[in-house]
Amino acid sequence: MKKSFGAKILAFPAPVWCVGTFDRNGKPNVMTAAWAGICCSKPPCVNVSLRKATYTYGSLMGKKAFTVSIPSENYAGEADFFGIASGRDVDKFEISGLTPVKSELVDAPYVNEFPLVMECRVIHFHEIGLHTIFIGEILDVKITREVLSQDTNLPDLLKLKPITFAPEIRTYHGLGEVLGHAFDLGMPLHLKNEA
Amino acid sequence: MKKSFGAKILAFPAPVWCVGTFDRNGKPNVMTAAWAGICCSKPPCVNVSLRKATYTYGSLMGKKAFTVSIPSENYAGEADFFGIASGRDVDKFEISGLTPVKSELVDAPYVNEFPLVMECRVIHFHEIGLHTIFIGEILDVKITREVLSQDTNLPDLLKLKPITFAPEIRTYHGLGEVLGHAFDLGMPLHLKNEA
Repeated sequence: MKKSFGAKILAFPAPVWCVGTFDRNGKPNVMTAAWAGICCSKPPCVNVSLRKATYTYGSLMGKKAFTVSIPSENYAGEADFFGIASGRDVDKFEISGLTPVKSELVDAPYVNEFPLVMECRVIHFHEIGLHTIFIGEILDVKITREVLSQDTNLPDLLKLKPITFAPEIRTYHGLGEVLGHAFDLGMPLHLKNEA
Repeated sequence: MKKSFGAKILAFPAPVWCVGTFDRNGKPNVMTAAWAGICCSKPPCVNVSLRKATYTYGSLMGKKAFTVSIPSENYAGEADFFGIASGRDVDKFEISGLTPVKSELVDAPYVNEFPLVMECRVIHFHEIGLHTIFIGEILDVKITREVLSQDTNLPDLLKLKPITFAPEIRTYHGLGEVLGHAFDLGMPLHLKNEA
């Protein structure tokens, strides 16, 4: 039996991604977005949604470029702070002690201490309502060597330790144990049909 | 020191959401999407991206309606199967033994056994490249009563047990332990500035 909650944001999980931009004076800023995700494989694209009231909105509209820096668990406090304060009022890099690095591919800075960064150029945006969705083509993904698996040359998630967010409940979570592999877990059902 | 991976989808975490649609003959279908997320608070909206080649793409374009059913960990196999098979070839509800329920709000079915469902009408779509992004306005969220917290009347994530997906690495994960609360973890840094 299901209970109806009406038209609400109650959807899990959401990512914790930190969106880096330069303002019109070239000051680096970063804000945390959970209304975000992957939206295309070719070209590889991510989407982030911003309220017009945010300082990042104006910077992103101006430069048509942004980065996404993915924090590891040990930077959960900094990531949360990036979602509380506004770059209009403060220098979030200075306060947090983290280091902005200017991308060589797009006119935006990323967070050097975070283990994975994406450099993106805006290829589309659409004003939905309170939020505007921006679609960014990923020009490069850079990953800290220390979090790479020696075997696969892909990130080792036990080292990368990305964070997820539970909207409305407002908790941050680490990744839990591996439940299985894609295109593997569902194979018994798939083969059952073919048998 | 960071290593460059080029223009790739290497972003974590992604959700595991099952998109329900009716085809032109009214046959219920469901496919798993990880290129998806939340994209607006007012109106509350989610986005899902689909390849044109999927059977769901045509159904969703036809009806301009879909549901998102969020599986719990114990349905990881079914969710993976929903991403392997095509509704063009098989009846995924019949094979999995799960139950399609026709939404009373939109012309689309949801998965009755999954603990959380969203009923959505398409308000915008944009062809990016291989994928088309669909923005759906959430008309209602329905949650199985057994996964609700008695205290908060919100979902208890230890009961709901949503799944996350790691692109490229192709592992499914449960949610890990709580790292802290939003607008709380970052407060020391925020107050440091005001001191």
